[in-house]
Amino acid sequence: MQHANGKNGTINGYKNESLNIAVVGGGLVGSLAALHMGKRGHNVTVYEYREDIRTAELVIGRSINLALSVRGRTALREVGLEDKMLKHGIPMYGRMIHNIDGTRNVIPYDRNSNQAIYSVGRKYLNEILITATEKYPNINLKFNKKMSGGKVEKGEVHFVDTSTQQEETANADLIIGCDGAFSSVRREFLKKNAFNYQQIYIEHGYLELCIPPAKDGEFLMPANYLHIWPRGKFMMIALPNQDRTWTVTLFMPFENFDSIKSSDELLKFFETFFPDSIPLIGEERLVKDFFKIPAQHLMAVKCRPYHISSKCVLIGDAGHAVVPFYGQGMNAGFEDCTILSRLFNKYGSDLEKILNEYSETRWEDAHAVCDLAMYNYIEMRDLVNKKSFLFRKAVDDLLHWMMPNVWVPLYGSVSFTCMPYKKCIDNRAWQDKVLNRIITVSGYAASALGFFGVYQIYNNYRMFEESTN
Amino acid sequence: MQHANGKNGTINGYKNESLNIAVVGGGLVGSLAALHMGKRGHNVTVYEYREDIRTAELVIGRSINLALSVRGRTALREVGLEDKMLKHGIPMYGRMIHNIDGTRNVIPYDRNSNQAIYSVGRKYLNEILITATEKYPNINLKFNKKMSGGKVEKGEVHFVDTSTQQEETANADLIIGCDGAFSSVRREFLKKNAFNYQQIYIEHGYLELCIPPAKDGEFLMPANYLHIWPRGKFMMIALPNQDRTWTVTLFMPFENFDSIKSSDELLKFFETFFPDSIPLIGEERLVKDFFKIPAQHLMAVKCRPYHISSKCVLIGDAGHAVVPFYGQGMNAGFEDCTILSRLFNKYGSDLEKILNEYSETRWEDAHAVCDLAMYNYIEMRDLVNKKSFLFRKAVDDLLHWMMPNVWVPLYGSVSFTCMPYKKCIDNRAWQDKVLNRIITVSGYAASALGFFGVYQIYNNYRMFEESTN
Repeated sequence: MQHANGKNGTINGYKNESLNIAVVGGGLVGSLAALHMGKRGHNVTVYEYREDIRTAELVIGRSINLALSVRGRTALREVGLEDKMLKHGIPMYGRMIHNIDGTRNVIPYDRNSNQAIYSVGRKYLNEILITATEKYPNINLKFNKKMSGGKVEKGEVHFVDTSTQQEETANADLIIGCDGAFSSVRREFLKKNAFNYQQIYIEHGYLELCIPPAKDGEFLMPANYLHIWPRGKFMMIALPNQDRTWTVTLFMPFENFDSIKSSDELLKFFETFFPDSIPLIGEERLVKDFFKIPAQHLMAVKCRPYHISSKCVLIGDAGHAVVPFYGQGMNAGFEDCTILSRLFNKYGSDLEKILNEYSETRWEDAHAVCDLAMYNYIEMRDLVNKKSFLFRKAVDDLLHWMMPNVWVPLYGSVSFTCMPYKKCIDNRAWQDKVLNRIITVSGYAASALGFFGVYQIYNNYRMFEESTN
Repeated sequence: MQHANGKNGTINGYKNESLNIAVVGGGLVGSLAALHMGKRGHNVTVYEYREDIRTAELVIGRSINLALSVRGRTALREVGLEDKMLKHGIPMYGRMIHNIDGTRNVIPYDRNSNQAIYSVGRKYLNEILITATEKYPNINLKFNKKMSGGKVEKGEVHFVDTSTQQEETANADLIIGCDGAFSSVRREFLKKNAFNYQQIYIEHGYLELCIPPAKDGEFLMPANYLHIWPRGKFMMIALPNQDRTWTVTLFMPFENFDSIKSSDELLKFFETFFPDSIPLIGEERLVKDFFKIPAQHLMAVKCRPYHISSKCVLIGDAGHAVVPFYGQGMNAGFEDCTILSRLFNKYGSDLEKILNEYSETRWEDAHAVCDLAMYNYIEMRDLVNKKSFLFRKAVDDLLHWMMPNVWVPLYGSVSFTCMPYKKCIDNRAWQDKVLNRIITVSGYAASALGFFGVYQIYNNYRMFEESTN
């Protein structure tokens, strides 16, 4: 074996040799993992089930909630691609709530520092990542390779070429399984002992619709927001695309989808719950898209450990698929690459050390982001409209303004920092405790009164700040 | 198709025809399910992976905690086998606790009505069940058939004969998957959408030891108890066998097993924690058995739904493997047969109705017994030695004596009634609420004082009752 990066053979006292790495899955996380490993000088082969997305005519896949936030940006920065992505992405500074009476109101993500998450197209992102691998002679891409089995604990994976039916076996020092929520690599883990695993389907399904550009080629709604139609038991959201269209996603219990059988029923349903969206989508397009394919399932996966022996590791959705309501699925998967990279920095090419520590340190955060997404599944469709939620949001914003380093609200810590997910939850629990104590000690009325006093000052300050910008 | 039981073609207005049923797995639950279905007149074929247990020389399998209680007895009674099993089984009326200083004390399961659970050998039980199927010309047994895949949603299963390698396909109206905790039938469910699944390995492993008979051929310990050596983080238990031996099981975190590497270390460990067991097991046998095979894993499974289309259903461990600490694994699996039978009574041979209702009504109870077993995993090794536990047990016994139909303690409702498992838990939660209210309202001291007064009366009554028996 050669030395990674042509450097000498050790790092921090651990051996540091060039490894043969098989990346199973060439989606967003797979192609980014290949870049991270390729950059280190390892010999990487990416096996992707689908054809090359850059030349494919039609891409079948999920596009919901590709919202790039700080964790994802960090991992992209590490391979020099952050700026490219941001240039393409559309910043969203907050949620724009569509009320049933047609009024709209904005809830900024971060009133104080004006941070944004970025709406990015899955196809574009994947294309950039795949093209970037071509800079590295030590990264090899293989498309149309369907995994058919293997002894992953020995670094062995079998593939069948979907066009030629030819069989092929990879023998790698390390298999990185990033083949998504329905991972074939993970299926091999399930055959082994002591693999803890959970998959949960939520009762809501999703269906994608589309809002076209206006006649003048511009956006039909204010572009820099994530639009939400919260309706309690169900909701609709819309994210802006570079081409001035909106990807609209309707989340609803399957029984509600099933109850809509005709275009009349559909239009009646939309007139009742999403009246302002009908002229935006257009009646004809709405009917066509709604009945095109049935609503899709949404699944969350938790498992532990993420590795078998020192030969195979699961990252991205393969290890921790989440429901899409926090916009963290891709970001968490990208963060896996950052964490894996850091462990290579720490332990050279000692895979036993690397994979053990990865499993031991990553599961709590991966389970936490799973829980966060489940929580937001309720917040987005229901709580977001409640006074208690808006009050708490105002309290959080105020305290964050007064103590920006001490008081970081939950959404901010998840989306605008790299604080470990588990710590974000612990932090929120601590905040709840502090607030409860304040309210208990000082009395609710007094604290609310006091709060509004300070809030007035804060608002005056904000207005002052805005007017001077 | 012919009519089941030769009766006319309907039951409660539903069609009632003879079905072709493939039972995958011929263990305890599989052979009992075959009897239940065979008795109804269906054509049943049992496919078992192992050879015929009745002629096999060595049976490799788990024997821990085969404690037959009321649910299991009910299902056996329905096929006329209860008495046969009880005659062989050894009644256990309570737990006999072995303290570290060598003293022992008894905690009866049910002080009032002297009920017992029965220790039964797995091999014996399975043999009786398999032999009983031979009475039915419509039940066909096939051994050495390993499931290799199938389209279970279409009633199709593939098998390979483990001796001849010949392939075989079953095409059934109904597949009953009862192939245990590592079910191959369930693996097919995992490939489908909307199947919720969880498997959890606990940090404890288990290892079996043996206490031989005394020289006079009798038991070396009082036979009618489940013996427990609770030691907080780990524990040992012993169940009596018909041949006057004891099956001893040591439950311990894997790291503790791993830390015992030599016979010296083993004996020192036993001298420290289980000193009274050494002369019972015998030093030589202890060392031999301990190092024979490594400690085994323990897994719990929850899933939902239990059926696919109207063609396949999971029962027993395949649907709800539990850790063995409540002695309910087999009993819950046997109860599945009772419930399925009742649904055939209700819906004839309308499999869609039967399987839908089975999935919809069984999951809450199956998840509940899983949780109960996890809870007892702590109670048995730790709580059982705590004053608070013994106090609560005394309160429960007393109230049960005063109101036998109203106040049924948790253990009793699980083991000595057929109350749905979920209701057992709800019932316990209600009892906790009542007790907390009494204690809060009357003050702890007063209620304790009052309690001990009544308890004295109760104890005097018990003594009186015992002396007059």
